[in-house]
Amino acid sequence: MNVLVINAGSSSVKFQVLDPATEKTMIKGIVDGIGLPTCEYRYTHKGKEHSIKQKIKDHNAAVKAVLETISELVGLDRINAVGHRVVHGGEYFSSAAVVNSDTIRKISELCELAPLHNPHNLSGIKACRKLLPKLKQAAVFDTAFHQSMPPHSFLYAIPYEYYKRYKIRKYGFHGTSHKYVAGIAAKMLKKPLSRCNLVTCHLGNGSSVTAIQNGKSVDTSMGFTPLQGLIMGTRSGDIDPEVVSFLQDKLKKDRHEVINILNKRSGLKGICGYSDVRTIHEKALKGCKRCDLALDMFAFRFVEYIGAYVAELPSVDAIVFTAGIGEGAYYLRKKVCDMLKNIGVRINYKKNSKNRAVDYVDDITARGSKIKVFVIPTNEELMIAKETVDAIAKKRH
Amino acid sequence: MNVLVINAGSSSVKFQVLDPATEKTMIKGIVDGIGLPTCEYRYTHKGKEHSIKQKIKDHNAAVKAVLETISELVGLDRINAVGHRVVHGGEYFSSAAVVNSDTIRKISELCELAPLHNPHNLSGIKACRKLLPKLKQAAVFDTAFHQSMPPHSFLYAIPYEYYKRYKIRKYGFHGTSHKYVAGIAAKMLKKPLSRCNLVTCHLGNGSSVTAIQNGKSVDTSMGFTPLQGLIMGTRSGDIDPEVVSFLQDKLKKDRHEVINILNKRSGLKGICGYSDVRTIHEKALKGCKRCDLALDMFAFRFVEYIGAYVAELPSVDAIVFTAGIGEGAYYLRKKVCDMLKNIGVRINYKKNSKNRAVDYVDDITARGSKIKVFVIPTNEELMIAKETVDAIAKKRH
Repeated sequence: MNVLVINAGSSSVKFQVLDPATEKTMIKGIVDGIGLPTCEYRYTHKGKEHSIKQKIKDHNAAVKAVLETISELVGLDRINAVGHRVVHGGEYFSSAAVVNSDTIRKISELCELAPLHNPHNLSGIKACRKLLPKLKQAAVFDTAFHQSMPPHSFLYAIPYEYYKRYKIRKYGFHGTSHKYVAGIAAKMLKKPLSRCNLVTCHLGNGSSVTAIQNGKSVDTSMGFTPLQGLIMGTRSGDIDPEVVSFLQDKLKKDRHEVINILNKRSGLKGICGYSDVRTIHEKALKGCKRCDLALDMFAFRFVEYIGAYVAELPSVDAIVFTAGIGEGAYYLRKKVCDMLKNIGVRINYKKNSKNRAVDYVDDITARGSKIKVFVIPTNEELMIAKETVDAIAKKRH
Repeated sequence: MNVLVINAGSSSVKFQVLDPATEKTMIKGIVDGIGLPTCEYRYTHKGKEHSIKQKIKDHNAAVKAVLETISELVGLDRINAVGHRVVHGGEYFSSAAVVNSDTIRKISELCELAPLHNPHNLSGIKACRKLLPKLKQAAVFDTAFHQSMPPHSFLYAIPYEYYKRYKIRKYGFHGTSHKYVAGIAAKMLKKPLSRCNLVTCHLGNGSSVTAIQNGKSVDTSMGFTPLQGLIMGTRSGDIDPEVVSFLQDKLKKDRHEVINILNKRSGLKGICGYSDVRTIHEKALKGCKRCDLALDMFAFRFVEYIGAYVAELPSVDAIVFTAGIGEGAYYLRKKVCDMLKNIGVRINYKKNSKNRAVDYVDDITARGSKIKVFVIPTNEELMIAKETVDAIAKKRH
């Protein structure tokens, strides 16, 4: 069964056609710059990369272009279902859902909580419904995996009625990735996921850590929005809430502008001017003090979260590193794991220092470590395809 | 040497005359309700409590009333120095400072960072300077102990220039209390404070946790303001920074009103309607679900901080509980320590369950615990008196 996975952003549509059973990808690509004169359409098929510059006016036109390519190179009849990444599923969705009018209504309603994502995810869904009316579609939510968090973990200590009335609570994101690597980790641990306690660390341009107990998310570092938690490429992560108000006053900017600064001009970039960890690492090696500081701050905050989650879980089988930084930045893994010695973490430096390539799962635990340490490349598209198949099968029964 | 300790708040002046060498208090009291028609002046002398209702128009008049009582009952000539609690010392003060025009100028400048505290602390200082012109005075800062935090700990991941230009960073508070209990803990551990690693927990109406390495604060849960960190009586502690902005929109309130809600109507009170842990505990025992939830949330957040600090320190000798809740709420200590089993904490339930009285230091560690657990009543006035004597002595040499 082949699934077309669609990840529609504000000005892009990423796609991939793959079979979740064999994990083979037939074609994948991105339409980048929708509505812009500089729009670029790139895709990879049979190992060859193609790039086309063409003006594409909206998400519908983007999906149309993608389907034309698939029709020509693969055959549209070989697609059996469509799986959509949707950022926010609120409290409605604790697993993937088959797309129908009720699902669409709920995703629309949740646009208020994810104004930068859900509307675009919806555009992708609507385009596919129009262009592929006969195919079953499913929505796979970034928040779904975290719906298992208990109230003492997901509630903020603000007036309780704000949770009821305005849905203000911790939702968490990157759920698809955390769930995917948790599944792989369970296989590495040779026990069912439902008996695994893990701390999974998705470190990319956005980063989050999740505490997993008996296979279920019980806490995660992102919150009501993806701004909370770790220090990220351009996002501040945790700050004193009064800083938001103080900055509005000092900068004479409104709340939207301040939140925009915290999302786009803060994090590693705010500290040292660069948001890419590889650049920062290189500059730090060449003596840039501010880059050194940015890496120290990143690692320190990260260590705090791992420590917090190790303390709140009854036991921890493994810490899992994934996503761009988690998979590639061996120097950060070393820095962080060295700081975790007090809680018994030891890694094998030789295994760790090999630069990770994609599709390369590794156990970098050193002898004597109380907690195992894994590096597991994430694969959100594969997970979306699997969840899509599951959601459709469940609906049938 | 007897020290008059003054703690001037917005509408109150607390005072105490004590000898830091013998730790004996000669007289102590509070003028409560300055400027209000309901002002009450209470003091305790030779074990007897006195209460007088009288209108007191400002801080100068309050200090005058206090000095008249001291003059009558103790003798003004027996006071050798005055020590003032000052909330914010910014980056200027890493220890107590003798009051002179430079000190006053700096405390005034820092009013911007602590608008609810420093102006009143200054009023107390000015009143004492006027009424006791011959006595040496010192300012003892809540933030001073935390000035040893390294940059990777005290900086936020926001544009670096905001730190330089607007002084936005983590300062931390309750420093006098954390330092005091750390000193007692070192004695209990029978080693010099400079070789002790501790996690000190000041849990009162405001609460904070501090990571102490080699006797020095290296991290603390309060931040730029006392709003960050743990869940408190009426303060939210950590929330997603976007919640501040979202609430401004939803409630149609300006930033000051929203911050006021986060400070005054959130925390335990926001969740269950009560801010006092004793009340909440009683109601929870009687079946109030929301009270149970509030205690769970408090404990859970607290466990996260202890876990974070245990992970970031190279080793931990002891966890120290202090202040109202830390000293008295044995049920919360039990709840929290039970959750810390994964990091090797075990307490002696029998020792723990005795309700703590003031001046009662106890080691409640159970056999086999990897980290010791102490209950140590705090005494900020004694610490202020000691630091005052030290500051004046240092100035002389």
